[in-house]
Amino acid sequence: MIEALIFDIFGTVVDWRTGVAREAEAFFAGSDQTVDPIAFADSWRAKYQPSMEEIRSGRRGYTVLDILHRENLDATLAEFGLDDAVDDEGRARLNRAWEKLPPWPDVIPGLEALRSRYLLAPCSNGSIAMMARLARSAGLPWDAIVGADIARDYKPQAAVYRASAAALGLAPEQVMMVAAHNFDLAAAREAGLKTAFVSRPDEYGDGPVGTPDLAPSHDWEAVVPDFRALARQMGAAE
Amino acid sequence: MIEALIFDIFGTVVDWRTGVAREAEAFFAGSDQTVDPIAFADSWRAKYQPSMEEIRSGRRGYTVLDILHRENLDATLAEFGLDDAVDDEGRARLNRAWEKLPPWPDVIPGLEALRSRYLLAPCSNGSIAMMARLARSAGLPWDAIVGADIARDYKPQAAVYRASAAALGLAPEQVMMVAAHNFDLAAAREAGLKTAFVSRPDEYGDGPVGTPDLAPSHDWEAVVPDFRALARQMGAAE
Repeated sequence: MIEALIFDIFGTVVDWRTGVAREAEAFFAGSDQTVDPIAFADSWRAKYQPSMEEIRSGRRGYTVLDILHRENLDATLAEFGLDDAVDDEGRARLNRAWEKLPPWPDVIPGLEALRSRYLLAPCSNGSIAMMARLARSAGLPWDAIVGADIARDYKPQAAVYRASAAALGLAPEQVMMVAAHNFDLAAAREAGLKTAFVSRPDEYGDGPVGTPDLAPSHDWEAVVPDFRALARQMGAAE
Repeated sequence: MIEALIFDIFGTVVDWRTGVAREAEAFFAGSDQTVDPIAFADSWRAKYQPSMEEIRSGRRGYTVLDILHRENLDATLAEFGLDDAVDDEGRARLNRAWEKLPPWPDVIPGLEALRSRYLLAPCSNGSIAMMARLARSAGLPWDAIVGADIARDYKPQAAVYRASAAALGLAPEQVMMVAAHNFDLAAAREAGLKTAFVSRPDEYGDGPVGTPDLAPSHDWEAVVPDFRALARQMGAAE
C-alpha cells in the first residue's frame, strides 16, 4: 500500500539548532565579535515561520527558502549589532549553515533500512538546492527531492503534500509523511497522506523558539521514538 | 566555475532501445503473441517527440511523460494488432519499462568520479517519478532530479534548462549540460549553460527512429567518447 515515505527535515531529520549554532560559532571565532551562537540560531529561526507566512497568505509570491533565510539572517545580524561586521560574502557563507546541519543519530541507519522497501524523499520547506547539498553533507540517501519547491508554496498548505505525492507518481494514500510536529502531520492527513510521528524532544533545547511535541495529538498511523523504530514498524529490517 | 553537471537520460545515460525491447520480450514471452521486441521499442519511441510537441507548442497543457508513454504504448499495441491481448494492468506494467533501462557501461564509474567534484542531476524529459525509479534500478548516484517536471515543459524549450539550473541554486553558466544530441546542447547553450557532447553511436541501432550524432555540431566546452573521459576532462579522477 505505502510505496514512499517523505520526511520533514528541520527538527525531524536534522538538528538545526546545534548545527546553526556550530556554524555561527565557527564563523565568528575568526572575528573580534562576541556572539552567543545558540541565541543567534534561535533568533534566526524565530523568523522562519513569519517569513513563510507572507507566501502562504498570498501577500508575496513564492520565494525559495534560501532567500528567506538570507533576509532573516540580515535581520538577525542587525539585531545583534553586527550590521557592519559581516560583508556580503560572509553572509552568503553563513547562510549555507542550513546545508550542513547534523542528522539525529538514528537517522542514517533508519533511512538505510527503510530504503530497502520504500522510496524516500524529503518533503521540506527547504529548496531543492538546499536539500541536495544537505543530503551530500549529512549522507541522506534520498531517491528524489519533493516539498515546497515542487508546489511553489509552503507547508502546511495542502498543495505541498499533494504535489509531493504526485511528483512521485503516487496517490496521497500511498505516501507516508514522517515528522516530529503534529501540525505537519495533521495537514498531511488532511491532504490524504498516511502519517508517522517521531519524537524529537531536543529540537528546541531550552530556547524561546518553540516547544517540542512530546506526544502525538492524533492517532497517526505510526508513533515511534526514532527512525530505527520506524523502520522496524514499517517492516524494513536493518 | 562549473558546480553541477546535468544529464540527458534517454540515449545519453541509458540504452532505451535495448532496455525497452528486453522488457517487451519478457512481457510477451509469457503470452501466445509473437512480437518483434526491437520493432516494438522503435515504434513506441517513434511517438515520443510528436507527443511532447503537443505540449511544447502549447496545444496541450503540461502532462508528465509517464502519461504520454502510456498513450503511445496504447497506440503501439493497436498498430501491432495487440489491442485485445494486453489488459490495463499489463499496460501499466509494460509502461514501467522506462524505469528499468540499462546504463551504458561507462556511466556508473564516470558518474561516481564526477560526483567527487560536482552536483549531479538528470535533466530529462522524464518525470521525477520516472527518474527516481530509474536511478534505483540503474544505480545512478544523483544529488537531485531536475528537468521537465521542474519547468512543466519539455526540452529543448529554454525554460527547462534555466529552471533546472535555478532549482540547483545556480546561474546557468555554473551548470554543464551533458548529452549525446547536438540539438539538446544547442538549446542548453542558448539558455546560458555550458555543454558536453558524449558519443553514443549505438543509441538507435539500425532502426528507423533516428540517427546518432556521430560528431559535435558546435564547439561544445567538452567533447568526449564516454563518461569516464568526461570525468578526466573535468578534473574528477576515478
